[in-house]
Amino acid sequence: MQEVKIALLGAGTVGAQVARLLTVHQDELNVRAGAKLTLIGVAVRNINSQRDWDIPSELLTTDAYSIIRQADVVIELMGGIHPAREYILEAFKNGASVVTGNKALLAEYGPELHDAADEAQVDLYYEAAVGGAVPVVYGLRESLSGDRITHVLGIVNGTTNYILDKMTTKGLSYEVALKKAQELGFAEADPTADVDGFDAAAKCALLASLAFHTRVSLSDVPTEGIRGITPGIIASAKANNYTVKLVASAKRREDGIELFVGPALIPNAHPLANIRGVYNAIVVEGEAADRLMFYGPGAGGAPTASAVLSDLVAAANHKANGGFAPRELVYGDTPILDGSKATSRYQLKMVVQDSVGVLHAIMGVFAKNNVSISDVSQENENDGKENTCYLTVTTHEAVYADLQNTIDELNNASQAVTRFTSILRVENA
Amino acid sequence: MQEVKIALLGAGTVGAQVARLLTVHQDELNVRAGAKLTLIGVAVRNINSQRDWDIPSELLTTDAYSIIRQADVVIELMGGIHPAREYILEAFKNGASVVTGNKALLAEYGPELHDAADEAQVDLYYEAAVGGAVPVVYGLRESLSGDRITHVLGIVNGTTNYILDKMTTKGLSYEVALKKAQELGFAEADPTADVDGFDAAAKCALLASLAFHTRVSLSDVPTEGIRGITPGIIASAKANNYTVKLVASAKRREDGIELFVGPALIPNAHPLANIRGVYNAIVVEGEAADRLMFYGPGAGGAPTASAVLSDLVAAANHKANGGFAPRELVYGDTPILDGSKATSRYQLKMVVQDSVGVLHAIMGVFAKNNVSISDVSQENENDGKENTCYLTVTTHEAVYADLQNTIDELNNASQAVTRFTSILRVENA
Repeated sequence: MQEVKIALLGAGTVGAQVARLLTVHQDELNVRAGAKLTLIGVAVRNINSQRDWDIPSELLTTDAYSIIRQADVVIELMGGIHPAREYILEAFKNGASVVTGNKALLAEYGPELHDAADEAQVDLYYEAAVGGAVPVVYGLRESLSGDRITHVLGIVNGTTNYILDKMTTKGLSYEVALKKAQELGFAEADPTADVDGFDAAAKCALLASLAFHTRVSLSDVPTEGIRGITPGIIASAKANNYTVKLVASAKRREDGIELFVGPALIPNAHPLANIRGVYNAIVVEGEAADRLMFYGPGAGGAPTASAVLSDLVAAANHKANGGFAPRELVYGDTPILDGSKATSRYQLKMVVQDSVGVLHAIMGVFAKNNVSISDVSQENENDGKENTCYLTVTTHEAVYADLQNTIDELNNASQAVTRFTSILRVENA
Repeated sequence: MQEVKIALLGAGTVGAQVARLLTVHQDELNVRAGAKLTLIGVAVRNINSQRDWDIPSELLTTDAYSIIRQADVVIELMGGIHPAREYILEAFKNGASVVTGNKALLAEYGPELHDAADEAQVDLYYEAAVGGAVPVVYGLRESLSGDRITHVLGIVNGTTNYILDKMTTKGLSYEVALKKAQELGFAEADPTADVDGFDAAAKCALLASLAFHTRVSLSDVPTEGIRGITPGIIASAKANNYTVKLVASAKRREDGIELFVGPALIPNAHPLANIRGVYNAIVVEGEAADRLMFYGPGAGGAPTASAVLSDLVAAANHKANGGFAPRELVYGDTPILDGSKATSRYQLKMVVQDSVGVLHAIMGVFAKNNVSISDVSQENENDGKENTCYLTVTTHEAVYADLQNTIDELNNASQAVTRFTSILRVENA
């Protein structure tokens, strides 16, 4: 068997597990790759750090370039943009294939990296960048390569799913649920990247690029977080057979690709509604395949390492035996739609004046702005004041700009609406 | 781009969709395969049959060998054992790769076919053989190639899942639910292959072979059907937070591979409990990956065709650009365990004499046979006779032979048990 030399960059939670599995399962991995996998070095910032698994000290180095230049396959698990980008470009320059789990880097520099891999005629694999062990990158890149994908809708951030799940099942407030997630290590001390949706937006960009054979970057994705989700919103969703989830959505429409990351109401009959805790799940709809779902742990050292190793086996197989990974082809000229043109169903909850003619006036504003309504319900409990009540309006598919005009007009020009308490997208069952 | 010539054998529900998608999406498929895909012929039994999609008449032939001998890739969708096996062997002999959805053939002649493909150094792909569009073959063969799989547990037969789902959600009897499935085209006039578990057993053999890198055939799989599932069993499961599902299970134990197809109690918190209607879902547990699930339509022309086309794209890519599919490697010497050695938790319901000392006597028989009990409950409603009541016993992990001895002894030697009303495996949450 031909030897394939592997350089590992980073030995954190995932990197240490990759080194462990490469050692413990070496014989099986060699058989599967059709190659003799040899770990030639592990680049780390600090040789003496404590690690989840003891990497033989002769493999450790602080000089990443020294091992990159000898490698056939480079595994990049250090994270961050720089110097990860420079290391990967150096790997390609030296004819090595690359396996990475760096979603932030791919969402920002994906096109550059794919072009560099193509030019060097080597592979760029990144299963671990979306959904941890969940093989959705494989699914989109290979399993559905004979189909035309219409919609990708996923729970791709375990932290926010944990928080929303605890709010739903235990009735916790956002603050308490976040604190619990932090205590359990499911959320960072600074939770911004997760709770404001940026992590999910980077994954959304990767999924959309793959699904629609185009180049989507982070800045293309309209993104909302979950800080504004209250127990009241959760309770009201439950009462109406919905579950609130932070979703990443990428949809093919006739005029372009529509993207969204943010909280949405998922009908309880939808398979995503039942995804609990820190698990991830991605629903992929194809013209022929109908609806598929990929489900599993979205994070964690060993699960993510499993995804890295499957990429490594494929990349090493190609190095030793020929062939290559599917290229990230761009074809067609489907534009990415501006967020204002997105269409969705929406549910708006508002506090309104409880007097004759108010409902009529509000409906008039919706109609004038071309937003068609499927459902209106008024709740008797008032807002603590006399003369007000809650109104819940669910729309048919509406254009976001039209919805926004409706909201602005109701906020500014109408005496009928005191305030909006929530505005959420509604996914179809 | 290099031309890759494709011969299609069979133009039934799936074959006609494959021909349609190959024609309609030709440009996209060519780009993805990195090859010019040319359908050179479609072998059918009767040229003049009515089909779901009109195949150009100049492509139709009744002489399969004539197109097989010119092809680079042969797609076999005719079903049955003979002459499908002979056609596929002829394809390999001529250096063509093969894509098939023929689970019965693979479960019986898999080893022969894999060996023939290896010898010819061509690909044998069969995503459509398990779970329709659900990419579980891909998942096991490629996405989890860096992991060590411990358990595959799946709902792989849509017909029985539909029947059990209707019994559960609508309270139908087995007979009425079966009739409804037949009316909707979800069950055959002769439903034996589905309801007696044989279809699921063939898929179980394929999944186990893939997951554990060994050769499992249909006859290795202890198989039970669902004809004995009564509304009473369903109702009792529901009351105890279980759902009855026909599952295919393949588990790696220290001493070998344990296989089972049959009805089982799935805890409602388990992701398989929520799989509705004719959908399929396969849970795969890996040492590193934790628990993944693949979900989607398990049958239907277009979904299954989507799986066939993804295989075609991969096979054509290899033909044009080098590389090959992962080989079905056999390594290690893990034996397939005899069904009597299988271990599982079980739930037994029985009608027992309602008198002092009976429970003690029954518990004694379990203990003597080494079956440890986790839970006992007695129901007050009697069996229509005086002096009897229902007893439900749930065991810890027990060896099947020990359980069988317990049952035999209680049936034959004991006055305490009038009869057993159900004996079901219980899956862990």
